[in-house]
Amino acid sequence: MTTPRLRLGIAGLGRGFMLLLPTLAAHPGIRLVAAADPREDARRQFAADFAAATYAEIAELCADPDVEAVYIATPHQFHREHVELAAAHGKHVLVEKPMALSLADCQAMIAAMRRAGRWLMVGHSHSFDAPYLRTRELIDSGDFGAVRMIQALNFTDFLYRPRRPEELDTTRGGGVVFSQAAHQVDIVRLLGGGRATSVRAITGSWDAARPTEGAYGVLLNFDNGAFANLTYSGFAHFDSDEFCGWSGELGQPRDPHQYGRARAQLAQVHSAEEEAALKNTRTYGAGLSLANSGLEGITHNHFGFVVVACDRADLRPSPQGVQVYADTRRYLEALPPPAIPRREVLDELIDAVRHDRAPIHSGEWGLATMEVCLGMLESAATGRDVALSRQVGLPQHAALR
Amino acid sequence: MTTPRLRLGIAGLGRGFMLLLPTLAAHPGIRLVAAADPREDARRQFAADFAAATYAEIAELCADPDVEAVYIATPHQFHREHVELAAAHGKHVLVEKPMALSLADCQAMIAAMRRAGRWLMVGHSHSFDAPYLRTRELIDSGDFGAVRMIQALNFTDFLYRPRRPEELDTTRGGGVVFSQAAHQVDIVRLLGGGRATSVRAITGSWDAARPTEGAYGVLLNFDNGAFANLTYSGFAHFDSDEFCGWSGELGQPRDPHQYGRARAQLAQVHSAEEEAALKNTRTYGAGLSLANSGLEGITHNHFGFVVVACDRADLRPSPQGVQVYADTRRYLEALPPPAIPRREVLDELIDAVRHDRAPIHSGEWGLATMEVCLGMLESAATGRDVALSRQVGLPQHAALR
Repeated sequence: MTTPRLRLGIAGLGRGFMLLLPTLAAHPGIRLVAAADPREDARRQFAADFAAATYAEIAELCADPDVEAVYIATPHQFHREHVELAAAHGKHVLVEKPMALSLADCQAMIAAMRRAGRWLMVGHSHSFDAPYLRTRELIDSGDFGAVRMIQALNFTDFLYRPRRPEELDTTRGGGVVFSQAAHQVDIVRLLGGGRATSVRAITGSWDAARPTEGAYGVLLNFDNGAFANLTYSGFAHFDSDEFCGWSGELGQPRDPHQYGRARAQLAQVHSAEEEAALKNTRTYGAGLSLANSGLEGITHNHFGFVVVACDRADLRPSPQGVQVYADTRRYLEALPPPAIPRREVLDELIDAVRHDRAPIHSGEWGLATMEVCLGMLESAATGRDVALSRQVGLPQHAALR
Repeated sequence: MTTPRLRLGIAGLGRGFMLLLPTLAAHPGIRLVAAADPREDARRQFAADFAAATYAEIAELCADPDVEAVYIATPHQFHREHVELAAAHGKHVLVEKPMALSLADCQAMIAAMRRAGRWLMVGHSHSFDAPYLRTRELIDSGDFGAVRMIQALNFTDFLYRPRRPEELDTTRGGGVVFSQAAHQVDIVRLLGGGRATSVRAITGSWDAARPTEGAYGVLLNFDNGAFANLTYSGFAHFDSDEFCGWSGELGQPRDPHQYGRARAQLAQVHSAEEEAALKNTRTYGAGLSLANSGLEGITHNHFGFVVVACDRADLRPSPQGVQVYADTRRYLEALPPPAIPRREVLDELIDAVRHDRAPIHSGEWGLATMEVCLGMLESAATGRDVALSRQVGLPQHAALR
């Protein structure tokens, strides 16, 4: 008996789609049946790559009876509207992180999907990466005792990569709290058990030409007594991929001798329009297609240096697996290299839709992560801890493979 | 014209003295003229090593007219009493970190030394290490713009090294806040400009058999808008010397293949008495002497991974100097290997006593660091930010060489 492929429609053929494209194209449980995007070149490319239907409007995509589930990868500020559209047409939804820009929007999305009786998932985020999921399994094994402290640190050039104006405007979902903490907090919540109780954060906006949060430090308390300490710098010159064996965020090999490329490239740009145009050269249908989306010889995705201090071991997810530093020995809990990068997000979606298995990365989970991110902004503004009240734990079955 | 050597007396021939012994013995500006310790074997060893006077009582040492300055390396809880004794006899003082266990004690020490008209310094702490001082000079050069964020991270087996009972009792100055934050906070204050405004901390006491703080996470705000994020684990299995080129805290080469020695050794110990006895085998006069205090082929001391994010560079102190990650290039600002390890602390003392040059690490500086450490304990207990009011900046001359 073969489970039929999930017939997926894509809402938004931008950067999020491009990052998931190798996975979408290769996953044996997925068939791409349609896409919607306002850019004609993107639609043309999609039709050519997948012999699939294309639409200028998300509403048309959602009305397509051949589409079972929609992957919503439109700009952050449209997530709510597009999830509600998909719900109205009875589609399952995978919505990109950050889930939305307010808790009210997240709640509305959850309510709409619940009324529709369809699955809602939030991702891809790096908390789907196999090494973090495997670390969670090792914690659940009980072999290493309680989780006590989680350290997460990521130094990147995020803020100096080509950006559209809204990506540098916090009110429109720009900056590293919405874009990057949505990964890092999600990972830390996965490893800490999910239920954070309070957050204290300091954010940094250091470059008047890029007027949004580019860095932060965070202390996060969990209901089980564990705490986490997170640091992110998107202004960085130092690159923490050094602590990940010079494997990049997408699992690609990094050249440690290459230095300062993002800033050097940006120095050649003289206006926001030029910068947006530069970004568009990395966009599907305008320079990029299925043919050049592949990643050869890669390791697992990662999101910087992470170590989980447990009673009887420190667990350090790595691009090759999980480095276990136990009381008497140290060893690599190796994972096979990913045949299909980021497949975990689609596995979890298919498990939900085809097998009624509750996902970790549900709407409620995504809302809880956004509560922490929004709490970071509030804490940075007020200089105080922010109490958290919408947190959820992991599903009982611990949907880990 | 030769400056006469500083005639130094040692109060307490324990671990602090042992760590500074190679420096004290080799520094050309220092002559060890006397020591006091209750242990007869330590006194006998000192007399043999230095042909110097020895006393059972600190009061006798302080009364010795040949002594110009006293290095107070007695247990933390006695620092105030011993500084007051030295002050009463008109001696200059170098007192080990942590300066004392309360701000009231720190203030009393400062007042006593001021009345005596003598210099008070606090150290050794790792903020004397040449790479941190050089980083401060690079910041002061203005070449790299403002300091924005400081990340400090140290994972060690501190809590599983042999300890005396009071080292595991916070009320008597035990635990990593008094012993280790006194280093890390001092470094971070040096790099951040000194004047912290508030601290938020979470501490971890995870082992009922070692009932004191063994780990912490800290967010620290500075008056110049910079902030710092500190993490320490003395329960660690992962060893952050990996991020320091496998050079140890004392600049000694570490063997990355050696693993878990502290826990393995401790597992052989069956009582607090046995453990204290084990610690004593590492003590001056009982197993250790001048002859086996040397460190050959060492790099600079360090206190874990530290990176300072400035506007135009990230600065990363390392055992070899300062790794500069600037906008367009990356390079090592190399420092010559230390001919005399930790000499900076004695240089600063001699500069003060012989040349009236105000030290960075004054009593007021030490008090400010203790204010942060005590604030960490308070913040961890109350779950809130603690405002800081006793902070001081760096001396105008910036006593850096």
